[in-house]
Amino acid sequence: MTPAPVPDDANRTTSDAVDLLGLVAHLEHVAFVRLAGDSTMAPDPGQRLALSRFAARAVERRDRVLARIEQLGGDPLVAMSRYETMLDDFDTRTQPSTWWERLLKGYVSFGVSDDFCRLAAAGLDEQSRALVLEVLGDSSHADLAVQALERACTGDDALTARLALWGRRLVGESLGVVGRLLQQRPGLARLASADDSATTSPATPPTKVLNELTAEHTRRMSRLHLTA
Amino acid sequence: MTPAPVPDDANRTTSDAVDLLGLVAHLEHVAFVRLAGDSTMAPDPGQRLALSRFAARAVERRDRVLARIEQLGGDPLVAMSRYETMLDDFDTRTQPSTWWERLLKGYVSFGVSDDFCRLAAAGLDEQSRALVLEVLGDSSHADLAVQALERACTGDDALTARLALWGRRLVGESLGVVGRLLQQRPGLARLASADDSATTSPATPPTKVLNELTAEHTRRMSRLHLTA
Repeated sequence: MTPAPVPDDANRTTSDAVDLLGLVAHLEHVAFVRLAGDSTMAPDPGQRLALSRFAARAVERRDRVLARIEQLGGDPLVAMSRYETMLDDFDTRTQPSTWWERLLKGYVSFGVSDDFCRLAAAGLDEQSRALVLEVLGDSSHADLAVQALERACTGDDALTARLALWGRRLVGESLGVVGRLLQQRPGLARLASADDSATTSPATPPTKVLNELTAEHTRRMSRLHLTA
Repeated sequence: MTPAPVPDDANRTTSDAVDLLGLVAHLEHVAFVRLAGDSTMAPDPGQRLALSRFAARAVERRDRVLARIEQLGGDPLVAMSRYETMLDDFDTRTQPSTWWERLLKGYVSFGVSDDFCRLAAAGLDEQSRALVLEVLGDSSHADLAVQALERACTGDDALTARLALWGRRLVGESLGVVGRLLQQRPGLARLASADDSATTSPATPPTKVLNELTAEHTRRMSRLHLTA
C-alpha cells in the first residue's frame, strides 16, 4: 500500500507564519492610517501630537514584521496585500459619526484584532511569536482612549448609553471579520488552534476563538465601565 | 539726552528662535498629515510603504524641534499653534485633482517652505540652526517625487504641460504664504534678513527672500525638466 503523501510540514509552517505576519503587518499599516486620520481630527492639540506619535510607531512595528517575513523567505508586499480588502465592508458599516465613536472604534477593533493575532501567534515559531507579542504589546492608544472616553462619559448617561450600543455594534462587526478570515485562510485557522490539543474544549476552533475574543472584549469594555 | 530704550536683545533673540522653531515644527506636522494622506492614495504598494515611512520620520523631526523649543523655555504647543491656520487658504486654492498633482504639490510646497526655513535659520543660535538644517536635510520625499514624476512625464507632453502650469500655480500660492508670514511675524522677517549686512543687495528683505525662493524653485523644477 502506498503511504498517503506526507504534507511538507516545514513549508506549511513557514507559509502559515507568513500568512499571520502579513496580517499583523497589514493591521499595523491600517493602524497607521487610522491614527494619522485620528490625529487630524482630535479636538485637543496634545492628543493630536500623541496620536501622530502612535501612528509613527505603527509604521516602525509594521516594518519589523515585514523584515521577519523577508527572513522567512516570504514577499512582504504580497503577504500584506492578501488582506487589502479585508476591512472594506467593516469600515463601510462602522463609519463613526463623532470623535468619541472614532476613539471607541479604534479601541474595540484594534483590541479584537490584536487579541486574535496574539491567539494565533501561539502556533508560530519562537522568534516570530516573540516579535508578534512584542509588536502587539503597545497599549498607548488603548490608554489614551480609555482616559478620554472615561472623562467624556462621566456624568453623561446619554453618551454612555450611545457608546455602549456602538461598542456592541463594533464588536459584532469585528468578530464577523475574524470569522470570515478563519474560513478564507486555513493557515490562520491552523495557527489559532495550535494549542487545542492541550485543552478539552469541545467547541470547534472558530467558535473557540470567537468565544475567547468575546471574553477579552467584555474585559476591555469593563475598563470603560461600558456594558459589553 | 536720554538714550533710546535698548530692546532686550537676548529675550528677542529667543522669542524669534521660538517663532521659527514653531514654524518648522508645524510644517513637519503638516508634512506628516500630507504624507500619511499620500500614503493611502499612492497607486503603487511600494510607494505606499515609502510614504508612510516619510510620514513617520516627519513626526520624529517635529518632536526634535519641539524639544528644542522647550530647552529655550518656550511652550511647544503654543509655538506650533500660531501657524495653525497658515495653510488653510493655500490648501483650499491648491486642491490636487490627480495623484501627479498631489505629488508635485508636496515637491513644490515642501521645497519652498524648507528653503524659507533654511534662509531664516541663518539668524538662529548655533544649536537651533544646526538642528533646523539637519531636520530640513531629508530629501527622500523630493527624490521619490522626482523619480515618479519624471517617469510619468516621459513621452506625455500633455501631462508635462499641465504639471508645468500646476507648478507655477503652486509656487505663486506658496510665495504668497511666505509674503504674508513675513508681514505677520516680524521675528521671522528679522531672522530671514539676519545676514543682509554682509550683502549689498538693494532689495528690501521680503523681496530679497522671495527672489531667493523663486531661484531655488526654478532649480527644483529644472530637476523635473519642467519650465518654472
